[in-house]
Amino acid sequence: MGTGGAPNEHSMSQQLQDRLFNELEQLVLIDPHTHINPHSAASTTLADIMGYHYYTELAHSAGLPKSQIEEPGLDPKEKVGRLVTKLNDLENTVQVSWLLEMCREFFGFEGDAITSDNWEGLYDTAAAKMAEPGWEQQVLKHSKLEQVYLTNDFDDPLEGFDTSLYIPCLRTDDLVFHLPKLETRERLGKATGVEATDAKSLKSAIGRLFEHFTAKGARACAISLPPDFSPQQIDPVAVDPVLKSMLSGDSLSSDQANTLSCFVFWTLAEFCAEYKLPFDLMIGVNRSVYADGVYQGQDLFDHRTSLILYRELFNSFPQVTFPISVLAQISNQELVSYSWIFPNVVVNGHWWYSNIPTYIELDCRARLQAVPKTKNIGYYSDMYKLEFALPKFRMYRRILAHVLATDFVVNQGWSETRAIDLGKLVLRGNVERIFGR
Amino acid sequence: MGTGGAPNEHSMSQQLQDRLFNELEQLVLIDPHTHINPHSAASTTLADIMGYHYYTELAHSAGLPKSQIEEPGLDPKEKVGRLVTKLNDLENTVQVSWLLEMCREFFGFEGDAITSDNWEGLYDTAAAKMAEPGWEQQVLKHSKLEQVYLTNDFDDPLEGFDTSLYIPCLRTDDLVFHLPKLETRERLGKATGVEATDAKSLKSAIGRLFEHFTAKGARACAISLPPDFSPQQIDPVAVDPVLKSMLSGDSLSSDQANTLSCFVFWTLAEFCAEYKLPFDLMIGVNRSVYADGVYQGQDLFDHRTSLILYRELFNSFPQVTFPISVLAQISNQELVSYSWIFPNVVVNGHWWYSNIPTYIELDCRARLQAVPKTKNIGYYSDMYKLEFALPKFRMYRRILAHVLATDFVVNQGWSETRAIDLGKLVLRGNVERIFGR
Amino acid sequence: MGTGGAPNEHSMSQQLQDRLFNELEQLVLIDPHTHINPHSAASTTLADIMGYHYYTELAHSAGLPKSQIEEPGLDPKEKVGRLVTKLNDLENTVQVSWLLEMCREFFGFEGDAITSDNWEGLYDTAAAKMAEPGWEQQVLKHSKLEQVYLTNDFDDPLEGFDTSLYIPCLRTDDLVFHLPKLETRERLGKATGVEATDAKSLKSAIGRLFEHFTAKGARACAISLPPDFSPQQIDPVAVDPVLKSMLSGDSLSSDQANTLSCFVFWTLAEFCAEYKLPFDLMIGVNRSVYADGVYQGQDLFDHRTSLILYRELFNSFPQVTFPISVLAQISNQELVSYSWIFPNVVVNGHWWYSNIPTYIELDCRARLQAVPKTKNIGYYSDMYKLEFALPKFRMYRRILAHVLATDFVVNQGWSETRAIDLGKLVLRGNVERIFGR
Repeated sequence: MGTGGAPNEHSMSQQLQDRLFNELEQLVLIDPHTHINPHSAASTTLADIMGYHYYTELAHSAGLPKSQIEEPGLDPKEKVGRLVTKLNDLENTVQVSWLLEMCREFFGFEGDAITSDNWEGLYDTAAAKMAEPGWEQQVLKHSKLEQVYLTNDFDDPLEGFDTSLYIPCLRTDDLVFHLPKLETRERLGKATGVEATDAKSLKSAIGRLFEHFTAKGARACAISLPPDFSPQQIDPVAVDPVLKSMLSGDSLSSDQANTLSCFVFWTLAEFCAEYKLPFDLMIGVNRSVYADGVYQGQDLFDHRTSLILYRELFNSFPQVTFPISVLAQISNQELVSYSWIFPNVVVNGHWWYSNIPTYIELDCRARLQAVPKTKNIGYYSDMYKLEFALPKFRMYRRILAHVLATDFVVNQGWSETRAIDLGKLVLRGNVERIFGR
Repeated sequence: MGTGGAPNEHSMSQQLQDRLFNELEQLVLIDPHTHINPHSAASTTLADIMGYHYYTELAHSAGLPKSQIEEPGLDPKEKVGRLVTKLNDLENTVQVSWLLEMCREFFGFEGDAITSDNWEGLYDTAAAKMAEPGWEQQVLKHSKLEQVYLTNDFDDPLEGFDTSLYIPCLRTDDLVFHLPKLETRERLGKATGVEATDAKSLKSAIGRLFEHFTAKGARACAISLPPDFSPQQIDPVAVDPVLKSMLSGDSLSSDQANTLSCFVFWTLAEFCAEYKLPFDLMIGVNRSVYADGVYQGQDLFDHRTSLILYRELFNSFPQVTFPISVLAQISNQELVSYSWIFPNVVVNGHWWYSNIPTYIELDCRARLQAVPKTKNIGYYSDMYKLEFALPKFRMYRRILAHVLATDFVVNQGWSETRAIDLGKLVLRGNVERIFGR
Repeated sequence: MGTGGAPNEHSMSQQLQDRLFNELEQLVLIDPHTHINPHSAASTTLADIMGYHYYTELAHSAGLPKSQIEEPGLDPKEKVGRLVTKLNDLENTVQVSWLLEMCREFFGFEGDAITSDNWEGLYDTAAAKMAEPGWEQQVLKHSKLEQVYLTNDFDDPLEGFDTSLYIPCLRTDDLVFHLPKLETRERLGKATGVEATDAKSLKSAIGRLFEHFTAKGARACAISLPPDFSPQQIDPVAVDPVLKSMLSGDSLSSDQANTLSCFVFWTLAEFCAEYKLPFDLMIGVNRSVYADGVYQGQDLFDHRTSLILYRELFNSFPQVTFPISVLAQISNQELVSYSWIFPNVVVNGHWWYSNIPTYIELDCRARLQAVPKTKNIGYYSDMYKLEFALPKFRMYRRILAHVLATDFVVNQGWSETRAIDLGKLVLRGNVERIFGR
């Protein structure tokens, strides 16, 4: 390789982009969607980080047997060692770039790659750092995180943690899709003290959940939805026989199950209106497509879905804000257009299989070009452990800086200050206002 | 912000792009699809411009109540003042960049933004300019517009304006989709002198429209279509009972309505063949999805449509040219491919929700890489008032210059002259030849 | 045009990209999917090249009548002369850029375009070069091709050619979709000596094909599939009556035909498992959409398909590798995601209507960001004549070099050597390992 044209001599446009990125990096964040367990928010070993399903499923996809990843009683260090054997096959992925960035930022790792030669030292260094008192606070501070939104089971007592730092959100997949399971109904009964035997008592039970969650400072109701779900208002009269049939032990037909799902979903929207909670919709996932996949690595999607399925919902609840995430990247134009037209539809982050730079950049550009700037929630980490916020948000900030530099400063002559203000609104301001209650 | 790396020191590739853009800017245009009212083509106040549904619907989406936008008897200046309160929320949108460009070009506006502090002066300046004699001609000249294609109701008398400047086009949505409405049938009867009571007389009435329109110099028949429409040839024998049922006052089943729509649509294609008119198809819009939206701000789409639905049509009418616009950006690859294969399928512009730079660039690149250059109609403004042609075509010319510079001059070593010639063909030459009759 | 800013003064990033491209250009290739006839692999006149359906269908699309292209007994030179009349209309297409590149590399052509003034000289030069002894070897060597995979009919004797250079692959479209044709059954009977009268004997016949093909060194079983095909396991008991009905001369209902197709398809997958052959799936083509199109220029697609249709297949055959090509570019994200999750799903090349630079770049970037590097087969030529490998692979190598330069060297600080190694794996290493048996 020649050395004459080293790419570290930055062009003007790269310098501009770097300046914007550095400004965006200063911003303290609120992360509006995560899967953090507030009782154990930070990692204790590298296995907590590399056990994230992105790594286990990619390693599995690259040939590591599930039995080696999920062996009962597997020692965390041994687990990391096994995953490391596949890291070279994944070195190109953005997910591994996050891993390296975490190791560099938090544990002083200096290599180009985590290999069989260096992983043990890294593991031990990480374990030592994570064992320091205040590791959780260190991570929050270093990552410039002010608040972290949670994804709480509907029967979470929401106790024993600081709800002004870790903000509760009511996750409702189980209620909408798994009420036919006895376990779900028992959890609901236990959490609310209400036995849901008909439409009325079911509604009342759900109302109790909203009461409990909002009393604890919840900022959103959230759900993930399969691609073929289409919310409809259901007459309670049509639900009672379904509930009766379910409670008598019959298994429901798919029509009956859908009636029940729609009824619960619509009820949630009604309570969102009453309690003034945004209703986060994460649209498009099929669960357990790959039954033999690793834990949390079994879900995929059918991109043949449309926001037209939500037409009745958006029309019926003008007072409810719907921050919407779409799993299929091809859904982004619909999302942009529906948000451009419906006052209550807001674009929200870059979800899961769409959360890679190529797709984020396309989607980010379209959203900045056609959605009112106040209706654009730029990013959430979706993380399970605190350490992930830093590399994920950094990836997004880099892309955002690139789009602001190109589409606004260069192409439209915006001042850098104005572009940065737009970036900050999308990164933080909108989170505060939209979920602020 | 540092000043060392100001982005105004243009790179070579930016300079190349600027040269191509400047050449394309010299070209006098024919705008092949607009909603101009030829009796009132230019604006009289800023309310005509800001009343464009793109601004009202975005302001509404950003929180301005419909009642404030559409208050009966609302004074134009007051309306603009109200819309201005939301402009800051929309400052990032490409639509607002058009607004600023119009105000700069036509009214000498020099600010970065239209605000509560400066809008009144701007409003008054604009009103004074628009009141000058020959404003319409000034706009046409300044915008380098030679001809403007219209979208005429089927019963438009096409009188009282210069049909060599404002070119009539027969818009047929009402005929295909609203014949069951008494009003439509009355308009048809009045326009043609034919009472359409059966397939034969309906066909005859439609024929009269083609006769009238082509006598007035019409250059196209046009229609917008919902995503699930699939044209089929219908036996007249199957239509007669539907018409009979309709005329007796019965409301049609959806099957009957579809039979009638297909029959009228197919009849239009037959007359396009007979009268040698291109048939503009604008595919993919669902009307009134958001019933409480502002005027013209209620339509959205379901991106799950395919050109395979038009297979029978394209095969049956090889002698008719079909310039096709798609609403869903994801339909672009099908459009490119169908145009690559079918001699009678031509790509046409960037429609509505696809008319933003990110999507235009992707679509423009793919079209230039795989569609014969003679079958590519680059752009139309879709404007309601003449002032919009300038910023919209300029946006397109900038993107086209970028694609020509990158994909042809830099990557393939084309001369600049050759690239500019390709650009001019796409911008104007093809419009002349395809609609030239 | 000014001369001050000539774009030949390359930027740093262009220089980097050029260095990577030059390294990738050195790599000797295995082309894992072509339509080469090993008995006549190279061209004998320019008509062999310009008779490629990409040129005939584009010329036809641009207005050249089919009767002129496919006139019986048409002299090759006359055919080229006729196609040349349309080349100017197609000069913008990537397909014509391949043609020019072939003429430059193989025949010393120096013009910017093939025109009515220069084509005859070019034709004669090409004919003379092609008549040289060892032309086939010259092309292979100049194109750096080490092995070329074929697409063989199931009844191909696979004799009379060097199967270590031209690698057999079992193409199975006829078996899966055309068994109801008497001709197909006769060919099957003749090739295997088995009369397929029921599920058992049909399976046995298919097994003979695998025996024959693998004995000759076949490396893959391959099939192209319509967008609505959804493989399902079929009980042999359900197939017997369908076969009986078919053999008695009845025409099959579409349900029966689908049952038979699914049974044969599933049987192929079973034999792929038994014989350890990868099963290439090329998903999404509708045949004969444009019945009056030129030869091989009649097929298009409906982009409304999903890999969810293959869920049962991927789960049922974990031991079979499925290299997957998708016709619709919008399917790429699903392909990336399914490959990220399923160990047996591998991404494969850029097929047909997706094989243009804009779409290749998008797809290449997403695949490199989210699919394990070992599961990514970068490119195949799909060529009918050897001369096409050079320009098609060069197009891909240029795009790959651009993506490696931008996304890995510049954005992530990878060394150039590491980026080139990734490129080589994707271009060649994976082909060797995945099809290596």
